[in-house]
Amino acid sequence: MNYKMISYVLGYVLKIEAAFMTLALVVSLIYKESSALAIGITMAITLATGFLLGSFKLENKVIHVKEGLITVALSWLVMSLLGTLPFYLSGAIPSYLDGFFEVVSGFTTTGASILTDIESLPKGILFWRSFTHWLGGMGILVFVLAILPMTTGHSLHLMRAESPGPETSKLVPNMAKTAKILYTIYFVLTILEIIALMIAGMNLYDAAVHAFGTAGTGGFSVRNASIAAYDSVSVDVIITVFMILFGVNFSLYYLLLAKNFAQVFRSEELRIYLGTIFVAIIIVTWNVLPLYSSLAESLRFSSFQVGSIITTTGFATTDTDVWPQLSKTVLILLMFFGASAGSTGGGLKAVRVLLLFKIAKRNLNKLLHPNTVKIVKLDGKRVSEDTVSGVKTFFLIYLLITAFSVLFVSLDGFDLETTSTAVFACINNIGPGFGMVGATGNYSAFSDFSKIILAFNMLVGRLEVYPMLILFIPSIWRKA
Amino acid sequence: MNYKMISYVLGYVLKIEAAFMTLALVVSLIYKESSALAIGITMAITLATGFLLGSFKLENKVIHVKEGLITVALSWLVMSLLGTLPFYLSGAIPSYLDGFFEVVSGFTTTGASILTDIESLPKGILFWRSFTHWLGGMGILVFVLAILPMTTGHSLHLMRAESPGPETSKLVPNMAKTAKILYTIYFVLTILEIIALMIAGMNLYDAAVHAFGTAGTGGFSVRNASIAAYDSVSVDVIITVFMILFGVNFSLYYLLLAKNFAQVFRSEELRIYLGTIFVAIIIVTWNVLPLYSSLAESLRFSSFQVGSIITTTGFATTDTDVWPQLSKTVLILLMFFGASAGSTGGGLKAVRVLLLFKIAKRNLNKLLHPNTVKIVKLDGKRVSEDTVSGVKTFFLIYLLITAFSVLFVSLDGFDLETTSTAVFACINNIGPGFGMVGATGNYSAFSDFSKIILAFNMLVGRLEVYPMLILFIPSIWRKA
Repeated sequence: MNYKMISYVLGYVLKIEAAFMTLALVVSLIYKESSALAIGITMAITLATGFLLGSFKLENKVIHVKEGLITVALSWLVMSLLGTLPFYLSGAIPSYLDGFFEVVSGFTTTGASILTDIESLPKGILFWRSFTHWLGGMGILVFVLAILPMTTGHSLHLMRAESPGPETSKLVPNMAKTAKILYTIYFVLTILEIIALMIAGMNLYDAAVHAFGTAGTGGFSVRNASIAAYDSVSVDVIITVFMILFGVNFSLYYLLLAKNFAQVFRSEELRIYLGTIFVAIIIVTWNVLPLYSSLAESLRFSSFQVGSIITTTGFATTDTDVWPQLSKTVLILLMFFGASAGSTGGGLKAVRVLLLFKIAKRNLNKLLHPNTVKIVKLDGKRVSEDTVSGVKTFFLIYLLITAFSVLFVSLDGFDLETTSTAVFACINNIGPGFGMVGATGNYSAFSDFSKIILAFNMLVGRLEVYPMLILFIPSIWRKA
Repeated sequence: MNYKMISYVLGYVLKIEAAFMTLALVVSLIYKESSALAIGITMAITLATGFLLGSFKLENKVIHVKEGLITVALSWLVMSLLGTLPFYLSGAIPSYLDGFFEVVSGFTTTGASILTDIESLPKGILFWRSFTHWLGGMGILVFVLAILPMTTGHSLHLMRAESPGPETSKLVPNMAKTAKILYTIYFVLTILEIIALMIAGMNLYDAAVHAFGTAGTGGFSVRNASIAAYDSVSVDVIITVFMILFGVNFSLYYLLLAKNFAQVFRSEELRIYLGTIFVAIIIVTWNVLPLYSSLAESLRFSSFQVGSIITTTGFATTDTDVWPQLSKTVLILLMFFGASAGSTGGGLKAVRVLLLFKIAKRNLNKLLHPNTVKIVKLDGKRVSEDTVSGVKTFFLIYLLITAFSVLFVSLDGFDLETTSTAVFACINNIGPGFGMVGATGNYSAFSDFSKIILAFNMLVGRLEVYPMLILFIPSIWRKA
């Protein structure tokens, strides 16, 4: 194991994190908040740790699959452990574990909160809270790749471990350039949303934090009532549209920019993603119609909530907990469906769900014609049997972790709806579930043990299972 | 497609069914019930249909995989459609659909009931209701194979489609002999349980119907309060032991009779099955301890309920709906775990769950050592990659059907616990779930649409997915 290389990358990640904290510090100073001190101290500690970890002399820069996975898992853990400090040192969140839960929820773009009164927190602290969504959405290692002089060609293992989806492809042959393109698209879309929200009447601060929450498909708001607090049709529509946009595979935007429209329209994942949103909105709009005064209003709330859940954002404009069971079940299924691979959204991802259906269909056909070879195709191209097998195993491990997590969280003794949807909402990086963790609730009532399990779930979901699981294989830590 | 052969087998199945109804007729006559007439008419109709379907002149007796699956699916449907008549014609269940739900629940050994007052029904009718468990447990086609002169060697496709588990093996080279051995073991164990229950104080009638319910891992009782009505420690213990015995792979009993003890002890499925029961009993006994007056009492109720759920029987001696969430979650997970392959129990089956864990573990190891070939082993033997892939796909399709069923049943608007555990309890052939379908509840409140979905689930669970799904592939019904 190349420990020095892992330490070097971790150090780099922390330096970047400290640099990004500057934004929160500036916000704190503008609003003349005492929490600026906590942020400043955190920056100093984070920078110092970063330099310490990066102080090894590197003998080789090779990163194998194994090291790639471990580096990503440890980066996210270390980043969260230090990212907790602004909350803890400022006293905004008195318990370190609660703060850790909140920050992991931020970085993993989950948006599950232990806060009972968000609006009482300082603006600088809340800015940092929302900004973790933006950083975690595209992935801090992808950012590192964009700027780190790592030319050995093994950096794909890092990006693959952090980017969502069954297959990671480079947009352009050069890894660093691919990362730069992705971050540029991400940055531009975020700026566009900030401008749109400001036109709709938000101030710069509110527009920025909610754009971070949308871009990362996170869902933290600075208002207790989430987006419902603004009670504005235009805000709802803007956020609905941007949530759905951020749930699209970013490589499609690159193809659009490259004027490769044919390939975009050929994307089966895009069609299944948009098609599912469309069908879900129709079902829910019809199902909740009696609760609202008009079809237009029902459509407004349904499309926002469907967009929020399928993209795994978690913003709310209404209390879905009082919706009829059909709509709630649709939302629960959408939680697992998730957004597109290569987007900032969580869940199983549309392309995996699509492949799972294709695999199921192929197996039935195999029964009828046992002697013919059947292949699975995506976008007209053959999907390798390795990928087919990998998608099935991913689904299996994902659900096993979900099942055991529900078992562990059951120890707290809350009802089935609360217990199960809390786990579903965390592993799929949504945020709110139903029952006690519904749109108007929060995660404060859970025991420390459950919070650790749920934070683990968030990381499992965001990093797509393997980086987190590999930490638990004993042989990994044995000296060769 | 060999339609004539399918029709011939269906005819045979119905003749056997009619013959078995004689038992219910005798019970009706002994108790001088007017429902004897309804049973008699049903027998006549069933026999006539049987002769009609079997009247074709057979040109060839070949059954391919496809025909095997379709024959099994249609047999179970036809058997249930006619098996409903005693309930419907006697007026015991006024709605034909409700009666169909009840009989499908019986044959599939689910035990989910729409009856609100079981004890008000005639004894002959209730005998038939419980006897469907016994018939469905081992499978009526397995019985047909034991006596039908079918020597073409393709009968394995029939048995495979009806017998639970990822791999069906013959105990002895001859198919009919294998089926005879299985039914003999089944018959002897049932008689032993009847005797044991009579020693514990039950009368012959009660002992017989509850032995049928245990043997088939069905769970229908003739008492409204299920086994709790007897309030007897010895009855509880006898049924607990026999439930667990009927959840064991029957081929192990054959090995025991053949004095091949080494192979029995080597069975990983047996160990994981018994080990899971042991661990679950410990967790639940500890968790529900505050609800009962002593450790012994807690152990008594915990072991009964754990045995009842993991074997997918569904008898109850206490209201598990008031148990703490941890115990409820354990029971929900056990629902999917299920009994052993080659037993009368439902669920995913212990061996599949074991294989799924082994597959997950192999995949993690593959990440660490990408260039070495890893094989999955069971009982010291290599599991083929076809089986590995098949088990994963089975799990996938099983859960997809579960998810869509929950969606459809949500249309009724009941709470998540009721909706989801109703589906779990039906697809896994348990019977009771939680909430409205808990130990003290029933399925009467569901809409006709939900009852059809749930009955479909029961058949999907009992016949292990493929026979039922194949009916929905349009190309199956097209003329070649």
